[in-house]
Amino acid sequence: MNQSKPIRIVGMGKYLPNLVTSQEMENKFNLPKGWSEKYSGVQQRHIASHECNGFMGAKAAEAALEDAGLKLSDLDMIISGSGTYDYPLPNQASIIKAKMKGGEKYHVPAIDIDSTCLSFVAAFDFASKLLDGKSYKNILIVSSEISSKGINPKNWETLTLFGDGAAAMVLSYDENQSSQFIKGGQRTYSEGVYDTIIEGGGNKFFFKEHAYNQELHSFKMNGRKLLKMAKHYIPDFMDWFFDDLPYTVSTTDIIVPHQASRMGMGVFTKLYKLRQEQMKVTLYKYGNCIAASIPLTFIDAVEKNEIKRGDICLLSGTSAGFSIGSVLLKY
Amino acid sequence: MNQSKPIRIVGMGKYLPNLVTSQEMENKFNLPKGWSEKYSGVQQRHIASHECNGFMGAKAAEAALEDAGLKLSDLDMIISGSGTYDYPLPNQASIIKAKMKGGEKYHVPAIDIDSTCLSFVAAFDFASKLLDGKSYKNILIVSSEISSKGINPKNWETLTLFGDGAAAMVLSYDENQSSQFIKGGQRTYSEGVYDTIIEGGGNKFFFKEHAYNQELHSFKMNGRKLLKMAKHYIPDFMDWFFDDLPYTVSTTDIIVPHQASRMGMGVFTKLYKLRQEQMKVTLYKYGNCIAASIPLTFIDAVEKNEIKRGDICLLSGTSAGFSIGSVLLKY
Repeated sequence: MNQSKPIRIVGMGKYLPNLVTSQEMENKFNLPKGWSEKYSGVQQRHIASHECNGFMGAKAAEAALEDAGLKLSDLDMIISGSGTYDYPLPNQASIIKAKMKGGEKYHVPAIDIDSTCLSFVAAFDFASKLLDGKSYKNILIVSSEISSKGINPKNWETLTLFGDGAAAMVLSYDENQSSQFIKGGQRTYSEGVYDTIIEGGGNKFFFKEHAYNQELHSFKMNGRKLLKMAKHYIPDFMDWFFDDLPYTVSTTDIIVPHQASRMGMGVFTKLYKLRQEQMKVTLYKYGNCIAASIPLTFIDAVEKNEIKRGDICLLSGTSAGFSIGSVLLKY
Repeated sequence: MNQSKPIRIVGMGKYLPNLVTSQEMENKFNLPKGWSEKYSGVQQRHIASHECNGFMGAKAAEAALEDAGLKLSDLDMIISGSGTYDYPLPNQASIIKAKMKGGEKYHVPAIDIDSTCLSFVAAFDFASKLLDGKSYKNILIVSSEISSKGINPKNWETLTLFGDGAAAMVLSYDENQSSQFIKGGQRTYSEGVYDTIIEGGGNKFFFKEHAYNQELHSFKMNGRKLLKMAKHYIPDFMDWFFDDLPYTVSTTDIIVPHQASRMGMGVFTKLYKLRQEQMKVTLYKYGNCIAASIPLTFIDAVEKNEIKRGDICLLSGTSAGFSIGSVLLKY
């Protein structure tokens, strides 16, 4: 179905905490020299020290507003699209808003959308469908992620793969520009529901009855099964997504994939015989920053002038759940 | 702005775990006899035993689908609108979907919307804006809440106030019926951001560095300040919300408030001189079930024939954040 609308990314911003090289990581955790880059492809990542999700999100959001030439009072909604959070309650968008300049003064609604690693993509999709130039003129989306706390240092694969960071975008409804939201969508393949999980810390294994335990409270993924599911279901998803569009994955100008893992992105590149300049990669320098990966990679490519106004861009990835989701847009 | 659309609630369902009377609660926790009802107005509530959020949500969702005469495969999206969750990762909608009949077979997108106690209202608003009769014909919204785990038994006020339960609704786009989504909206008043909180369990006070502690990991609210904020900001919100509508709070047929507390609902009733038959209350029998309170109360009123097709209904409440939000609909 034609979902096309005149939605334009009018501002972008990011916040990255301290840089930590793979060598520093290997020294700290007693890993063989060179292991990190060899196995995960990550040369460096940023890791939060004094920062919390709210602080990083607010910084990225303020940078995006400044880039857009807008103020908080111009916004009709703030959406936090993230997989990690400062507190179990309240929602993360409320924390981010409260930490922004003008946050106390203006009563912009602050709402979270969570589809784990696809939270930014889902938020972009929902925001585009809400924006109408009347009730909703400008919506801010923020993804602020701290993955480093929930990582088990004994699991080298995840220890070296993940990074922390925040990214934000302001979307506006603007009929006078050629930018377009073309389509958004997600499919959830429930056979993989428990293959990416943090078991402890919710109601199922509540803190009170389950004291901290590195296994129970750390991020776990069944990498082999996830890769198999990605191979199997990406074609199913893409056939469904592009069915009614005058584009294909291969003819899309730019692909901004979730930086899930080098092998995961490799599957995607191989399936559609994608060219290197089409497929945007920041894994080597940011690691996997959960939902912030896609906007951080998008911003990086715009900064390098690798994404230009008018380019048809596919934001796409997999997430815990197990889901595959995409947004197609004309930048 | 006119947001009106032909959206109809076509099915509803609920799941309630074991009933616990206030007398049983008072015996168990050594409270003075009659304290619960006297101070919180809650005579009984339901409390989960073997059930998790996912289980209760799936049961409520299946009941709503059956009520609608639809199958999971008829859905275009499943939204979990809840403040509590089984696992920090993946999102709750993925867990609920996986536990539903047909959940593994059909690849309906499963996404969370979190605005704490207003999560159901925000999900209803977003779903109504997504539904277009083309890409989105039917959306299921589920709120499944287990508050009992995060309650500090030393805090009698919250101990006796909260309950557990799940409720679900199927919304459909249907131009052949007179049902309408009229308007939805929220405002977030950040000066109250830390006045309703669970501090421990996220990245701010991470499990590893902060072992379980009843104070840190329990729900806390600054009741007096929240009540003051509600009094101050409800008129601000309602003036904004009803500004462009041919209705007022007082002329709305039915008001389904969040069952936040007896005093909170009292403020609202007094402000707008609401009639008893207008204002729907289930606090005495369900307690405050977080985001599930509004749909549980709505379902209760429909079951008692107190809400009829054609009635103009206002779903409204306050939430941690601090937010006020509403949806106005013609049932």
